[in-house]
Amino acid sequence: MAYTEFTIEGRNAVIESFRAGKPIDKVYILDGCQDGPISTIKREAKKHDTLIKYVTKERLDQLSETGKHQGVIAVAAAYEYSEVSDILDKARERGEAPFVFILDNIEDPHNLGAIIRTANLAGAHGVIIPKNRAVGLTATVARTSAGALNYTPVAKVTNISKTIEDLKKEGLWFVCADMDGTVMYDLDLKGPIGLVIGNEGEGVSRLVREKCDFVASIPMKGDIDSLNASVAAGVLAYEIVRQRSL
Amino acid sequence: MAYTEFTIEGRNAVIESFRAGKPIDKVYILDGCQDGPISTIKREAKKHDTLIKYVTKERLDQLSETGKHQGVIAVAAAYEYSEVSDILDKARERGEAPFVFILDNIEDPHNLGAIIRTANLAGAHGVIIPKNRAVGLTATVARTSAGALNYTPVAKVTNISKTIEDLKKEGLWFVCADMDGTVMYDLDLKGPIGLVIGNEGEGVSRLVREKCDFVASIPMKGDIDSLNASVAAGVLAYEIVRQRSL
Repeated sequence: MAYTEFTIEGRNAVIESFRAGKPIDKVYILDGCQDGPISTIKREAKKHDTLIKYVTKERLDQLSETGKHQGVIAVAAAYEYSEVSDILDKARERGEAPFVFILDNIEDPHNLGAIIRTANLAGAHGVIIPKNRAVGLTATVARTSAGALNYTPVAKVTNISKTIEDLKKEGLWFVCADMDGTVMYDLDLKGPIGLVIGNEGEGVSRLVREKCDFVASIPMKGDIDSLNASVAAGVLAYEIVRQRSL
Repeated sequence: MAYTEFTIEGRNAVIESFRAGKPIDKVYILDGCQDGPISTIKREAKKHDTLIKYVTKERLDQLSETGKHQGVIAVAAAYEYSEVSDILDKARERGEAPFVFILDNIEDPHNLGAIIRTANLAGAHGVIIPKNRAVGLTATVARTSAGALNYTPVAKVTNISKTIEDLKKEGLWFVCADMDGTVMYDLDLKGPIGLVIGNEGEGVSRLVREKCDFVASIPMKGDIDSLNASVAAGVLAYEIVRQRSL
């Protein structure tokens, strides 16, 4: 998995990239530029929560790779996503029982980055994320992953439930985190395992939860509802690490 | 501990507040305003990484509590910090051995918020942060703590090492997280305990580390260096929870 950045230059190219859902991390706009297409780009940038920087013509010329920026340059991230089979291969190569993170709609790029970082250090073989709705591999994710994105394969799948079913045929079983589950210390978390982490606000979706073999809960001794998603993922992942080390 | 917001209105008041290091979360500036004091405010805001919003006069009038905003309104957060003794009292009230988080210069407000959230749910009695350099209780911290700031006391101390010494006299012993320590599963983490979490980049400072009774390490099975600080705090805190539950 490699993280590289490339530029998209010119008004139409940038507008089309936004509309195609490309992971644009930043847009440089010529300071003072205010025509129709520029307004459209600003609106798209706002909609996608993309940083806008207003810069001089000299700066744009410097950033430009084509020399034809027309007052706008977008910086996008390019990743090579892995396949689910790559993740299983990685486990096989290491001679270990597969340990996979499944992220059911994580929305915050900082959480996604921190979870990929955790997956790497907990010795997981890869991370699976859904194609739709959830956050993808943006520059923020790359940065918060602290380099883990270069080592830990991330696969994007259309249907998380379907992927869980497929992986069950490969011998994995699945545990998801939820409040009303069995306390994690009382579950047997060894063997080939998929750890399912739900959305920050809504938790694991019902369909995905129904596919899981077990629901694990982290003991909650406080006054509020739930841990931060990346902290919860870390706590559960390390309970798996602990049990595997026994 | 209560989190409230208040406004600081007028040019000099806002400039002085910045210079006094008050936790200003946002500055509203009248759109188009460009004189000397406004430039100073913009510069201070940039230096403190404070969000600037350019708004209309109508919006400022609406936000103003004094009616004398002079084109500038800053929004600051007010908290009542607790004392270290309040934290020990909380443990006593609950009839539990004290469990305290000590944060040695956490800089990222998202991490601080997530750690206070974790402290609450892991059943810790409070969080101690240093007066200088580290991030304080800003609105971002309040938001990321997901309400935990209203329940878990946070005390601010001048000298972390000195506080550790004082707490040792109260029977606490201290464990800090570092890479070359004893694997956390092999340590006895029961009893009255202070969990020391270091800075995001540099870890626990040497002076503080020397005061700790044990150095615990989280098993690292991956390619990169370290977990996100709030994830590491969560993993260690929950190892303490597990051992306390045995």
